Amino acid sequence: MSKIRIGIVGYGNIGRGVELAVERNEDMELVAVVTRRDPKSVQILTEGVKKVHFDDILTLKDEVDVMILCGGSATDLPVMGPEIAKHFNMIDSFDTHAKIPEYFADVDTAANEGKKVGIISVGWDPGMFSLNRIYAESILVQGSTYTFWGKGVSQGHSDAIRRIEGVKNAIQYTVPIEEAVERVRSGSEPELSTREKHLRECYVVAEEGADKALIEKTIKEMPNYFADYDTTVTFVSEEELKAEHSKMPHGGFVIRTGETGREGNKHVIEYSLKLDSNPEFTSSVLVAYARAAYRLANNGDCGAKTVFDIAPGLLSMKSAEQLRKEIL
Amino acid sequence: MSKIRIGIVGYGNIGRGVELAVERNEDMELVAVVTRRDPKSVQILTEGVKKVHFDDILTLKDEVDVMILCGGSATDLPVMGPEIAKHFNMIDSFDTHAKIPEYFADVDTAANEGKKVGIISVGWDPGMFSLNRIYAESILVQGSTYTFWGKGVSQGHSDAIRRIEGVKNAIQYTVPIEEAVERVRSGSEPELSTREKHLRECYVVAEEGADKALIEKTIKEMPNYFADYDTTVTFVSEEELKAEHSKMPHGGFVIRTGETGREGNKHVIEYSLKLDSNPEFTSSVLVAYARAAYRLANNGDCGAKTVFDIAPGLLSMKSAEQLRKEIL
Repeated sequence: MSKIRIGIVGYGNIGRGVELAVERNEDMELVAVVTRRDPKSVQILTEGVKKVHFDDILTLKDEVDVMILCGGSATDLPVMGPEIAKHFNMIDSFDTHAKIPEYFADVDTAANEGKKVGIISVGWDPGMFSLNRIYAESILVQGSTYTFWGKGVSQGHSDAIRRIEGVKNAIQYTVPIEEAVERVRSGSEPELSTREKHLRECYVVAEEGADKALIEKTIKEMPNYFADYDTTVTFVSEEELKAEHSKMPHGGFVIRTGETGREGNKHVIEYSLKLDSNPEFTSSVLVAYARAAYRLANNGDCGAKTVFDIAPGLLSMKSAEQLRKEIL
Repeated sequence: MSKIRIGIVGYGNIGRGVELAVERNEDMELVAVVTRRDPKSVQILTEGVKKVHFDDILTLKDEVDVMILCGGSATDLPVMGPEIAKHFNMIDSFDTHAKIPEYFADVDTAANEGKKVGIISVGWDPGMFSLNRIYAESILVQGSTYTFWGKGVSQGHSDAIRRIEGVKNAIQYTVPIEEAVERVRSGSEPELSTREKHLRECYVVAEEGADKALIEKTIKEMPNYFADYDTTVTFVSEEELKAEHSKMPHGGFVIRTGETGREGNKHVIEYSLKLDSNPEFTSSVLVAYARAAYRLANNGDCGAKTVFDIAPGLLSMKSAEQLRKEIL
């Protein structure tokens, strides 16, 4: 059986994660990495893979079954997504929640025009967490859903700290507050403020001679990012930051509690992830959905999709018969 | 908008649970209960619902959009399922794992003949647990999946005890062993024996003058049901059994641990349920899938399906646009 030919667009943490995930799926092969850098300058792990400049992406039209877009949601994907969906089946991890409807519409128009399948917003949130929200809410119609993130590194918050004067480097962890998680699990459906759900732990390397008290104050008072949270700031050396905080763990919980019947029987549905590597896990989800896109396209389907539109059986290497026999 | 018209076939714990679940879904209404008893003798909770003998089920052909089959998997469903799928869209909770392929084939033939949709093996295991197995295995291709059940009442095991001479009544709880769950969560991918995963707690009401020591020995040595487990037997009065053990709680865990990348980063995916009422929760899942069956049939689809074949968006009362905007 011929393998599903995967292309990667954008070779950062997620791109490398996709490369590693493809290695672990025997029905797939990585055939090309597309980049906006000088392709020769990009060092990839796999031998025999084409490195192609983004401007030449259409030369891959007959060589790639599914493109996995690994660019950022802020500026890369809104432009790239619809362009690529016109010519390739594609998967991305678009995660700017507020702009999903608009982005979906753009990809849908392009993908329908090109008769391609584009599955957007794939990963774990949006992605696996969204799936757990929809399943849980469809079953327990009356109830409350809670999402907690962490403990894990937030790139956005780390970047915000790095932009402060006198800061050389920084890592920020989002940490769910165990007491809030327990209150939710109890089924009491509490109303929780932002501050009650998560706290923020910052590890900061200051420039020599910088005003640490001012840095700490600036972080803690930063609107949107930190002001609404209990935030701790710990100053560390560059070496310490590298040694202790260079991994990218993450995770979180989706919990729905609700009731059924006339007597109000209570139920708790909980989904949790504990991830050593956020980009490698996200990439593994992307690759599973690439299989679904390939199958849908082969079946004549086209247009934009999200995880809500994909039957779970399409994600598995196993046949429908095997799945019914072995894991149903 | 007209409501989805639901029929219930078989009015026991699950049938009553479906009736209660339909009450909580405003896009549905219960229109008929089908029974093999004398319909007049069946007391149901909802007013204005037809009670129809099973032999007259075809009189409901134009009145019911989806039949929810609430009979047992051992003898009821294998006969009823294909018969009903020929004439009605239907959902069931067939859970004899070993016979799923055969049952699926029978329902598929009938449903295709009648141009109806039949979704089989819906509930939480098979059902939600199966979904979590397939998602987790499709993402973490290399890893191990574990399912734990409980703490909850097993009807099959309770019945087995009740058949012992001198036993008046009994309830059996399946209990996951916390130490095993913790070993699994650690990511060590342990090989666990049957005895290491679950224990069995039995509450037994003995007939007056019965040989309790013999009853306890008979339970503990019963092959398949108890011999492979650590089992506790507690004798209680009939009153105590009613007061303390008349609820039907259940739940459990599906945990997959596995690794990604070349350095073997570890990940833990965990799904858990904690249910006050096993039949009411199962019924709530059935009702959500009835919505999917209705939509698929309206869209011209037919044949047998399982939860693996159903896109999650079909389960929700919300439109695709709302889902993308609100919970993706």
